[in-house]
Amino acid sequence: MSFVRNNWYVAGWSHDFAAELVSLEITGQRLVLFRDRKDKLSALEDRCPHRLLPLSKGKKIGDTIQCGYHGMTFNGSGVCVRVPGQDNTPERANVCAFPIVERHGVVWIWMGDPALADEAKLFDIPELSDPNWHAHHGGHLHIKAHYLNVAENLVDPAHVSFVHPTTLGNAASENVPVHVATEGEVIRAWRWIRNAPPVGFFKEFGGFTGNVDRWHYYDLHLPSTAVIDFGSIDCAENCAEEDRDKGVRVFAIHFVTPLNENETIDHWMHLRNTASGESANAKIDGLLEMAFAEDKAILEAIHEEEQRPQSRRPVRIAIDRGPTVYRKRIREMIEAEAVDHLGEPVAPVFVDGNT
Amino acid sequence: MSFVRNNWYVAGWSHDFAAELVSLEITGQRLVLFRDRKDKLSALEDRCPHRLLPLSKGKKIGDTIQCGYHGMTFNGSGVCVRVPGQDNTPERANVCAFPIVERHGVVWIWMGDPALADEAKLFDIPELSDPNWHAHHGGHLHIKAHYLNVAENLVDPAHVSFVHPTTLGNAASENVPVHVATEGEVIRAWRWIRNAPPVGFFKEFGGFTGNVDRWHYYDLHLPSTAVIDFGSIDCAENCAEEDRDKGVRVFAIHFVTPLNENETIDHWMHLRNTASGESANAKIDGLLEMAFAEDKAILEAIHEEEQRPQSRRPVRIAIDRGPTVYRKRIREMIEAEAVDHLGEPVAPVFVDGNT
Amino acid sequence: MSFVRNNWYVAGWSHDFAAELVSLEITGQRLVLFRDRKDKLSALEDRCPHRLLPLSKGKKIGDTIQCGYHGMTFNGSGVCVRVPGQDNTPERANVCAFPIVERHGVVWIWMGDPALADEAKLFDIPELSDPNWHAHHGGHLHIKAHYLNVAENLVDPAHVSFVHPTTLGNAASENVPVHVATEGEVIRAWRWIRNAPPVGFFKEFGGFTGNVDRWHYYDLHLPSTAVIDFGSIDCAENCAEEDRDKGVRVFAIHFVTPLNENETIDHWMHLRNTASGESANAKIDGLLEMAFAEDKAILEAIHEEEQRPQSRRPVRIAIDRGPTVYRKRIREMIEAEAVDHLGEPVAPVFVDGNT
Repeated sequence: MSFVRNNWYVAGWSHDFAAELVSLEITGQRLVLFRDRKDKLSALEDRCPHRLLPLSKGKKIGDTIQCGYHGMTFNGSGVCVRVPGQDNTPERANVCAFPIVERHGVVWIWMGDPALADEAKLFDIPELSDPNWHAHHGGHLHIKAHYLNVAENLVDPAHVSFVHPTTLGNAASENVPVHVATEGEVIRAWRWIRNAPPVGFFKEFGGFTGNVDRWHYYDLHLPSTAVIDFGSIDCAENCAEEDRDKGVRVFAIHFVTPLNENETIDHWMHLRNTASGESANAKIDGLLEMAFAEDKAILEAIHEEEQRPQSRRPVRIAIDRGPTVYRKRIREMIEAEAVDHLGEPVAPVFVDGNT
Repeated sequence: MSFVRNNWYVAGWSHDFAAELVSLEITGQRLVLFRDRKDKLSALEDRCPHRLLPLSKGKKIGDTIQCGYHGMTFNGSGVCVRVPGQDNTPERANVCAFPIVERHGVVWIWMGDPALADEAKLFDIPELSDPNWHAHHGGHLHIKAHYLNVAENLVDPAHVSFVHPTTLGNAASENVPVHVATEGEVIRAWRWIRNAPPVGFFKEFGGFTGNVDRWHYYDLHLPSTAVIDFGSIDCAENCAEEDRDKGVRVFAIHFVTPLNENETIDHWMHLRNTASGESANAKIDGLLEMAFAEDKAILEAIHEEEQRPQSRRPVRIAIDRGPTVYRKRIREMIEAEAVDHLGEPVAPVFVDGNT
Repeated sequence: MSFVRNNWYVAGWSHDFAAELVSLEITGQRLVLFRDRKDKLSALEDRCPHRLLPLSKGKKIGDTIQCGYHGMTFNGSGVCVRVPGQDNTPERANVCAFPIVERHGVVWIWMGDPALADEAKLFDIPELSDPNWHAHHGGHLHIKAHYLNVAENLVDPAHVSFVHPTTLGNAASENVPVHVATEGEVIRAWRWIRNAPPVGFFKEFGGFTGNVDRWHYYDLHLPSTAVIDFGSIDCAENCAEEDRDKGVRVFAIHFVTPLNENETIDHWMHLRNTASGESANAKIDGLLEMAFAEDKAILEAIHEEEQRPQSRRPVRIAIDRGPTVYRKRIREMIEAEAVDHLGEPVAPVFVDGNT
């Protein structure tokens, strides 16, 4: 098993869920989601404990779900409130309910021990609440690949020149070295490309024509949320790293949710410090969709290849520092949960982020 | 293995089979069926013993099948009567032949020890020979589900209100208790719903508008043939259970044939004590097809879910008495065959049907 | 594993490969093929050693392949010549290169130990260089079957009457015995049908109407190249076996290449001693395509059946001598390679071909 369970995973955007039953899978667990009459969201195990029919095949009755086979009925906390043909409702007929919260228009589900579900652990960044920034909830990408490969790609600036040569990257960045640092539960990989032609995205969106300084900061919040801060500025400005808000700056946020060992959904949104408005949203959506389709093709081809026999260990190269740190940290998180599960003291894993 | 082998299984209707080779699968065994020039049906193992080509890929030559690869030829008893290129036909080149009989327009094949094939064990009920009853061979439903789940559904009146709320059931029956009794190799589950609105089927077919008394009798003949006796009568008649022939009474017979562990075919026919004629046949066919499609959707969703990991045992509830007795009896039948196979005395399982 | 590895396998015709990357699979190994600017072909392992992306998803840069994920670059010998982001190119980043040669317009790849790749072992026959013979590269047949079954079919004249009753065979040959002899690494099965009506192919192509003498010689060059020498001659000529060049004589050559345990490609070409020209090529292509489609249907049905449970050993009959010798020889070849692999002396298997 390669999932971190004690984590808030993104199930979708708030506007994806209404009163109707929605079935989805996270970390191999099938869930049914629905809103009650006060708009409160619930997430239950999507399986009737009687004959295993998915509850999502049943129907909403008020604020409850009625199973489509024999009518056993469950409230939003998973408590069985009716068994047709008998008076009692045994406690062991209840189904699991998963902690679920909404913030910034995003729906999060806690897939681990409910007692540990802590809203303080929800992903957040100040720009999501900053009125000078314009946020837009984008689409979602279904990728037939392992989520670790998807997330790893998001702490790996070196692929951009080769996978996205006409959109997010170009040849000028092929050999520019990558820096990597870890701070708490965030792994950062970044590089600046100074005094180079603008890439397709910023020609389209920023209107740059002459040479620019441009940057990529990949902040991977463990286990699988990435904030990619990328932008460009006229190289005459001689922009310092910390002043990049003076340029055209865009954040692409990827919420990487493992469905199971073979499928991943990447819900992505974007924020920017300029150009509010729907037409800019649509233009950025279009550019990002084109780029993400390029990643999807690569990641799915790799996933297929990983299922085939292998006779040697893959090689690791200089640009792999971000992914290498990422894999190590994920391994530690999963091991810590396993130990925890055995009832033994959890090793103090994250006291020093500079692993 | 979850099949009862010493049993007559339905392969189809008599009119489904002519001189042409027909390939089908029962209890995981591929068979080829064909009629000889006197219309006698044969069922052989559908595999040439030489290079394993299915015999159904070959061709009929007179009353024999010639393999499509090297021309080895078999008669309707499975005996190899020709090996091209040599004079002798070794006995070990014969293929298995399965006992096969036709009665009431139905084709039955014995899948177990041919020495035990006894036509006295063929399913029958008096109404099939009664000139006052109108029989009609319906269609067949291919269901991607285990046959035990399909058959169990046919001794389970409690699902009707929830799976068929607009056709065979309605809300009035949701909490009406179910009776279960066993007599020999028949498990009966039944209930009466008194003084309630008619269900869709009998509004359409019986023309009822006011309240009726209605009944469901599910007779599951082990291992997997179900006779569902359902009907309605004006509640002013105050009908006794044994007098239900005074009402509008319909039998739906389901011959449940396991193809393998994942697929089942339900050949269904119907009989009724009123309204002979083709137009009534078509109307009933249409109503039943609608209802059976509802069952199929539920059973296939359950089958998919059963293939996924399970962390706890399903719960059983009061309405499960029919299915629970059924599972117990099937287990006994399969165990008895296994013991038999070991050459030990078979336990006297069925002397008292009231298990 | 059922592949002979130390062997030249056919990858296709020379005209199938140009500068573009082509991905294919032989004996379970995925390969990428491409020509350099001097038209020299290379065959590399189709997998980047870094993140396993197939190299065929990357692009040609001059005479090298650049991986589509991070730009690692390999020359036609599999040597890694560039790792973006670093100066050195570690030797363990190289990929395997497979010996590859072209002869008579056919591309051959050596799938075993490169040190043993010897062009003297390439399949050849004098007619391929004889100006009196007309050669034509035909198509290729993708068959979902094990390559041993495909090749075995090519040393088995007895199937022709039954699989190809209207094209390559007819009823006259059903019981004519088959001769089998082995000479070195060639297994020959053959039979003459004397004084019989011509088969469809030679009615079409040779214009015969009266009775002919006709022959089939199946030369299976181990492990999996077959030359089928078939023809017809007016039976008044009383043709001796060695004089069959006096008749209308056609060679169908099948290069049988296992993709993996479940898929095979049969690249076929033909030669003849008469009737040069494109229209004759097209006519023969058409006749052979019809016949080979008949084989494909049989072989795929058998492959499916071989995956199902089997309760007894297949029977062997008189006509099986060719296939039986073939299986024995292949087993010996594979065992010899296995012993070789262990570093022990290889048993002298092929000193006497008359096994």
